[in-house]
Amino acid sequence: MAFKTLEWKKGKLVLLDQTRLPLKEVYVECLTYQEVAQAIKNMVVRGAPAIGVAAAFGMLLGARESNARTPATFRREMDKVSQTLLATRPTAVNLLWAVERMKRVAEENMGKGMLVVGKKLQEEALRLLEEDVQTNRELGRQGQILIPDGCSILTHCNAGALATAGYGTALGVIRAAFEAGKRIHVFIDETRPFLQGSRLTAWELMKDGIPCTLIADNMAGALMAQGKIQLTIVGADRIVANGDVANKIGTYSLARLCHVHRIPFYVAAPTSTIDLSIKRGEAIPIEQRSPAELTSFNGRRITPEGMRVLNPAFDVTPHRYVTAIITEKGIIQKFFRTGLKKICFPPSYFSPSREEGWEGRRRR
Amino acid sequence: MAFKTLEWKKGKLVLLDQTRLPLKEVYVECLTYQEVAQAIKNMVVRGAPAIGVAAAFGMLLGARESNARTPATFRREMDKVSQTLLATRPTAVNLLWAVERMKRVAEENMGKGMLVVGKKLQEEALRLLEEDVQTNRELGRQGQILIPDGCSILTHCNAGALATAGYGTALGVIRAAFEAGKRIHVFIDETRPFLQGSRLTAWELMKDGIPCTLIADNMAGALMAQGKIQLTIVGADRIVANGDVANKIGTYSLARLCHVHRIPFYVAAPTSTIDLSIKRGEAIPIEQRSPAELTSFNGRRITPEGMRVLNPAFDVTPHRYVTAIITEKGIIQKFFRTGLKKICFPPSYFSPSREEGWEGRRRR
Repeated sequence: MAFKTLEWKKGKLVLLDQTRLPLKEVYVECLTYQEVAQAIKNMVVRGAPAIGVAAAFGMLLGARESNARTPATFRREMDKVSQTLLATRPTAVNLLWAVERMKRVAEENMGKGMLVVGKKLQEEALRLLEEDVQTNRELGRQGQILIPDGCSILTHCNAGALATAGYGTALGVIRAAFEAGKRIHVFIDETRPFLQGSRLTAWELMKDGIPCTLIADNMAGALMAQGKIQLTIVGADRIVANGDVANKIGTYSLARLCHVHRIPFYVAAPTSTIDLSIKRGEAIPIEQRSPAELTSFNGRRITPEGMRVLNPAFDVTPHRYVTAIITEKGIIQKFFRTGLKKICFPPSYFSPSREEGWEGRRRR
Repeated sequence: MAFKTLEWKKGKLVLLDQTRLPLKEVYVECLTYQEVAQAIKNMVVRGAPAIGVAAAFGMLLGARESNARTPATFRREMDKVSQTLLATRPTAVNLLWAVERMKRVAEENMGKGMLVVGKKLQEEALRLLEEDVQTNRELGRQGQILIPDGCSILTHCNAGALATAGYGTALGVIRAAFEAGKRIHVFIDETRPFLQGSRLTAWELMKDGIPCTLIADNMAGALMAQGKIQLTIVGADRIVANGDVANKIGTYSLARLCHVHRIPFYVAAPTSTIDLSIKRGEAIPIEQRSPAELTSFNGRRITPEGMRVLNPAFDVTPHRYVTAIITEKGIIQKFFRTGLKKICFPPSYFSPSREEGWEGRRRR
């Protein structure tokens, strides 16, 4: 990668400012957890896995700022930090997942003094970052078998290196297919209103020399009808127990259009995006963003004054329109409920005795 | 109407510049047919019926510029004028229809001298303009019975007063329903890349006080899934013999999404948009517009340099996804081929003797 989406450098979180791409490659430094929260809210950093990692560093910065002398005070302070971070964007579950992981590490080391806690938190945040890149590479390696040679692929939003700590989820699969020597062509939905497609995905793919063509969101259906798209692959912000997928607004329409055109619709996401605590997609909180994203452009108004706007950032795609979910631990097709559970709680998760118990119960 | 999309004023065609709306209400004067052609090409004036009327005035201006002394020279000159006008935008058939009508008038009066030809052409162009407004009002009156009280309507692009000589086709139906006292709410697709929805439809509906909400094109499917849209109505650029409809890019996706959500999908267009010379939608020429519409905004680049772009201005919706076609001569549901033929060639079109012949043949 010729760029780093996020990097920990001398006690600061350095973020590639995604609101300025592709015209300017500007890096922003966050010195406090509030700055991290603001960067997530303003989409300086975005994409479910990337905001998870950013939030982990936000927790670390929050802990470093603390002057707490007792575990109880520290716990209260960290609760405040985590609430601030969680309040930024409600849909991506990776945020919650990363914050919880950091909290657990803090809790486990609470008895060992503040210095140890700080060190352990830094280790954990760096591990999360490193893990995310590895996860994406593995996800890409597994997923690329679904990409036939010579095919045209549609992608929506940006599920690339910019949406993760590196390599990407949906774009990770595309990258892996390209690296495997497959001749592919990517159609990029521009993805209104934030233009993650025309600004970010276009930038990434052009940098890597992967052949690509930009289209407006409303062109996808017509291209499918003309047989110009052989498969669609997107990322996810949250995948719930039954396989329903929350992802960037417009994903649902694409999934339905793929369905009626008999085009495979793949979702690529790390297991950290899976949320088994929610049974069905309807219960996923959907973030509503500012009307300004639709009413103005580069700070200049484009609509009549007083325009009423609906601007949900995400939609939910029911699992029956998802051909397969690609994770770093394997590909799930059909029977998502069982598949997702297996991937999140593999047999090794259970202790031998517990497994035996299971087996025993089954045999009886 | 508080504005005029096109007006003939002291020998000039005055156009409301639609590239500047909604921020500025600027009027542009065309003194030559080349200026009219340029205005159509640059979308200063747009919408199938409106460009038809504009082209008629273009023909008039072309005839006025002529110094031809013989009918043969005049005919050659008018051929050049019509070719220039027809080359501007290939998809909307109204352009061809209006040009042909003007040519016929010129031909019919050719023997009567240039002065008469000029007068007759002006009369015809003004008649076309007046007819278009009347046609839309009648179309609206007929179509509004399909709009239930209290419903939410989705529309794409701008098929309003700005797309016609006044009142509008799809928006004409919506206007008529609103004027009839029905409580309606309109969701407006912003319609990338030219933003006819967020700039033009929004402007028109806000001016008329019709309740409306702007959405991005990719949000329509999610709203349908949530039951927030009860029907969709759009205009058309060309309707062919079997009922296939060419309209603004994105229309096809909406029609398929309506189909899977069991939402009525209506097309409103005057009979001048019907082209029985083409049997099926595949044969409709689709205009490809400049990549710049997607790669830059307000003259500022938004994508990486060298970006490849696909920018078809229209797509074709197969008739099986169209619930009904609303024209000024009636509503056609199912059996589009027969219905369209009947509307274009009503019984009165046939001479009594010919009708008798038909009847006679049938009886035998």
